[in-house]
Amino acid sequence: MNLTILGCYAATPRTFTNPTSQVLEIRNRLFLIDCGEGTQVQLRKNKIRFSKINQVFISHLHGDHFFGLIGLISTFALLNRTKDLHVYGPKGIKEIINLQLRLSNSWTNFGLYFHELESNESEIIFEDEKVIVRTIPLKHRVYTNGFLFQEKVGDRKLDLNAVQNYEIDTCYYQKIKNGKDITLDDGRVIENSKLTFDPIAVKSYAFCSDTIYNENMIPIIERVDVLYHESTFLDSEESLAKKTMHSTAKEAATIALKANVKQLVLGHYSTRYENIKLFKQQAETIFPNILLADDGKSFEF
Amino acid sequence: MNLTILGCYAATPRTFTNPTSQVLEIRNRLFLIDCGEGTQVQLRKNKIRFSKINQVFISHLHGDHFFGLIGLISTFALLNRTKDLHVYGPKGIKEIINLQLRLSNSWTNFGLYFHELESNESEIIFEDEKVIVRTIPLKHRVYTNGFLFQEKVGDRKLDLNAVQNYEIDTCYYQKIKNGKDITLDDGRVIENSKLTFDPIAVKSYAFCSDTIYNENMIPIIERVDVLYHESTFLDSEESLAKKTMHSTAKEAATIALKANVKQLVLGHYSTRYENIKLFKQQAETIFPNILLADDGKSFEF
Repeated sequence: MNLTILGCYAATPRTFTNPTSQVLEIRNRLFLIDCGEGTQVQLRKNKIRFSKINQVFISHLHGDHFFGLIGLISTFALLNRTKDLHVYGPKGIKEIINLQLRLSNSWTNFGLYFHELESNESEIIFEDEKVIVRTIPLKHRVYTNGFLFQEKVGDRKLDLNAVQNYEIDTCYYQKIKNGKDITLDDGRVIENSKLTFDPIAVKSYAFCSDTIYNENMIPIIERVDVLYHESTFLDSEESLAKKTMHSTAKEAATIALKANVKQLVLGHYSTRYENIKLFKQQAETIFPNILLADDGKSFEF
Repeated sequence: MNLTILGCYAATPRTFTNPTSQVLEIRNRLFLIDCGEGTQVQLRKNKIRFSKINQVFISHLHGDHFFGLIGLISTFALLNRTKDLHVYGPKGIKEIINLQLRLSNSWTNFGLYFHELESNESEIIFEDEKVIVRTIPLKHRVYTNGFLFQEKVGDRKLDLNAVQNYEIDTCYYQKIKNGKDITLDDGRVIENSKLTFDPIAVKSYAFCSDTIYNENMIPIIERVDVLYHESTFLDSEESLAKKTMHSTAKEAATIALKANVKQLVLGHYSTRYENIKLFKQQAETIFPNILLADDGKSFEF
């Protein structure tokens, strides 16, 4: 599982900082999460192949999380993309994109599918044979979702020595990988645990931005491997955090602690701060495993 | 008159090139012309004061000319702008911007005025005491205008020695600057030309992008000081230029020649070319005074 931060600063793009966007690579899928202005240039700078992105998840309709989407879609069209693109985001996103495509007389040659979100309950919005994605309802000034990406438990791993010792025919291998016991020709029943190893441990990633401190998300993100939680402000701006419905570094760490996650990644910093290390310092007083997101940084989990 | 190129490449923003946007400073006014994605970052990089921009002119609704506008307007709002902002552009621009402001629940505290253009005739769209702006109807795949910026002829300059020699009272100075003759107490009539110098020569700038080769613009831009004319393609792509309704470097030079302009600035290069000097070489075979626009370049005229 690899996470590349394209942008992790709040409010506006600036000379050296970008608004929210990140790419999660999980089980060979490339998910784009949020798409602030300049995301397509950040994708180029970070050498991420446009054509591998088939799903875009938009948390909410504040500009620093979606103003780059229309440009990215237009560029896909100019690059003669043919593969379908699926956009998951709040109701309204379809109207915004389609209006601009219509007025610029630039329809796409690829299938462009919008999956508009309105529910205030966590729901499964994407699922294939390897990954499942659920919403994490957040509390912000407009309708907002985080997203939980979970690998699915895979097949059990065949113990090749064991199946050969028992002279089991290859045609039973898939059944064994699915967890079945095997009855040999002489009537002996061999338990599956003697023929297989446990499957590779599954990983999970929760993206939670933007949100006020909100314990309602805890049951959904409990025990995830990696939690990205916004920390727009430091302690000194706690009241501003409440007013603008954002979180402080300590609040993010408190959520991580209570949800018993393995690793917390902080981001969505207000550009008022010159030294983002202070976010780590303040969060570490509550939760030990803190990483700081920064534009262009890549994390392997 | 100063022209700063924020972006002058066609189609999409890339790692080192930006889509169309430029700032014209004329008689202490700062006009923003087109606003591709990333324009607000380019304004920062080029140290142009956001607050001095009160008028934005959008040529047409292709993304590489306006996708940065919603981000710029949102940033103005975040910076607590209070001064009115006027946007001149094709019908539809108001709906695009207002839809996004409405869905992000982020209305501006400043007056945001849209002047939507629909006419196929040149018309005056802005005028104050020092500058006048007219549309230049262009031919492209969607409704498109160029813009002609003209300084107004100012007052005549007072010849202080002359008026003092004739012992003319200061209360007549404004009349003299306006071009009136003066009758002295002894009845002598002093011609204005003996009391004043010619006013400072007025300058003019024509922005013409995007357009197919189109001689209809010539009467409007005749004898301008500076013509920015798109040259998306080189000679080798002449048929592609026609198909996509763009111009070649030589076609831009032909317009400059026929319109008898003083200076031609080329831009809106297709990103397929590695060496933009070829645009100058090809254009110079037709018209002598060629400058090449490039991102971050500033021209004083």
